[in-house]
Amino acid sequence: MRVLVALGGNALLRRGQKPDADLQQDNVRVAATSLAELAREHELVITHGNGPQVGVLALESADDPNLTRPYPLDTLGAQTQGMIGYWMLQALQNALPGRQVICMINQTLVSAVDPALADPTKFVGQVYDRAEGERLAEENGWTVKPDGPYWRRVVPSPAPQRVVETRLIRNLVRDGIVVVCAGGGGVPVIRDDKGRLRGIEAVVDKDLTGSILAETLECDAFLILTDVPRVMRNFGTPQQQEIGHTTPHELRELDFPAGSMGPKVEAACRFVESTGDMAAIGRLDQASDILQGTAGTIVTPNATWPLASTL
Amino acid sequence: MRVLVALGGNALLRRGQKPDADLQQDNVRVAATSLAELAREHELVITHGNGPQVGVLALESADDPNLTRPYPLDTLGAQTQGMIGYWMLQALQNALPGRQVICMINQTLVSAVDPALADPTKFVGQVYDRAEGERLAEENGWTVKPDGPYWRRVVPSPAPQRVVETRLIRNLVRDGIVVVCAGGGGVPVIRDDKGRLRGIEAVVDKDLTGSILAETLECDAFLILTDVPRVMRNFGTPQQQEIGHTTPHELRELDFPAGSMGPKVEAACRFVESTGDMAAIGRLDQASDILQGTAGTIVTPNATWPLASTL
Repeated sequence: MRVLVALGGNALLRRGQKPDADLQQDNVRVAATSLAELAREHELVITHGNGPQVGVLALESADDPNLTRPYPLDTLGAQTQGMIGYWMLQALQNALPGRQVICMINQTLVSAVDPALADPTKFVGQVYDRAEGERLAEENGWTVKPDGPYWRRVVPSPAPQRVVETRLIRNLVRDGIVVVCAGGGGVPVIRDDKGRLRGIEAVVDKDLTGSILAETLECDAFLILTDVPRVMRNFGTPQQQEIGHTTPHELRELDFPAGSMGPKVEAACRFVESTGDMAAIGRLDQASDILQGTAGTIVTPNATWPLASTL
Repeated sequence: MRVLVALGGNALLRRGQKPDADLQQDNVRVAATSLAELAREHELVITHGNGPQVGVLALESADDPNLTRPYPLDTLGAQTQGMIGYWMLQALQNALPGRQVICMINQTLVSAVDPALADPTKFVGQVYDRAEGERLAEENGWTVKPDGPYWRRVVPSPAPQRVVETRLIRNLVRDGIVVVCAGGGGVPVIRDDKGRLRGIEAVVDKDLTGSILAETLECDAFLILTDVPRVMRNFGTPQQQEIGHTTPHELRELDFPAGSMGPKVEAACRFVESTGDMAAIGRLDQASDILQGTAGTIVTPNATWPLASTL
């Protein structure tokens, strides 16, 4: 099978952890153990989030007294692709001796007239109290919005259309190479009126980019791996219940939080609807079981779709 | 022909410029115009320096109050590979419509017992007065040394042995893909006693990595492109004189400054000595002329070596 895994940026930097390099690298090594298990059996493409990481670098850049203005988000996103990509590359090479692994820098095309560009909604970086949030917004030209009791920077999150380097990724995975690509959803770019690529101040949702990439690469399965075992029905209420095997139709009748589970569910549904193949959401350390259909929330076109475990 | 170009990090951030992203990206666009000219005629592999850039990010990381300790140089080097690589990738794609360009994250193997690891000599980042330099050294565990009238951080610069992902690079360039790789000389790694790769606190000279890569990839020419038109004999004296066509034997009888022209000359000589092919040092905007032998300092095994311009 050909499998695409989208890995949460939070899986690399756990809640409450300091964003130190060594802690994140330890988490990446754990992740690589699970991913290596998949790679031994299947063609594997890996993409990853960068939410917490791009927030750290954005703040450092905003505080840098040697710069006229902070680095824009396209450049900062590319920095996180290099950093997280290097950690993943090395951890996967160590976990898969003799196997070739590549880490690519990728751009993701978005529409220059996407309405999301004028309406920042995606939280990045850390939380502040209101006064500090507003001061930083003023100082750096940010937009800040309330996030629970705190204030936090928001940036536009336009819909991904295509990973610019898709053809290269396809050729590499076809050759059996493990490909780490489109980190952070890919650096968001538009085409200007002369057809030239240009980076923009935005972030792309990595699960939606993963969905499009999995579809374009004709993957047999699209796995969204995170730190929760399954999608929950009625999350946070006394009626909450884990969802095992489900369909896009069933999932679309439920409500999920916009910032966290919402985009994952949407990305999984889109892949299943457009390809008729399997998507899943679950825990990183259960990757192999999820692919077998014995763990995670499995999304298939209909309830009688044959899972690997039942074939 | 198959050509490897090593581009100076200073060509992307000119002396005296603020390290702003937009200024560097403008410089990268200019560089891409020259490189695109080569790519239209030849198989092209590009590597680049990151001295000024890694210095900027190292300082930001050292000043980040949210970190327990600053990010190590391997991680910072990977960030610059992502950042500069993204700029180069996009600029080359725009300059070469229809041509495939890839930017890879790469590691460069060095010896775990390289004596250079215990003797930091390579300057990174900005200059300080003595008191400030010593304060920062104390605070961040740096080593600082005098650089002219100033003080500056020094880090170990071990000899590159091999780019870990060389086989992938070879397959890509053979397919006609323009490859941007091993930025900053590659992230320096050693193999531990279990054979696992591990990053180290060092930087690798990008010209020496370029030389090894050009040799291993069996390139026909190795171009070191920078902001000076030619190597000078007796640089900075009334007898200074541009060197046109020369040989490793002639060059090795001269003295060059250790920090700047020295490693370039050494890298060019090594490539020519081990392959019998041509190396050159010159201005980025004269890349095509240099390859023809009509600009730059051309290094060939002997003085009667037929240059392209005379064939």
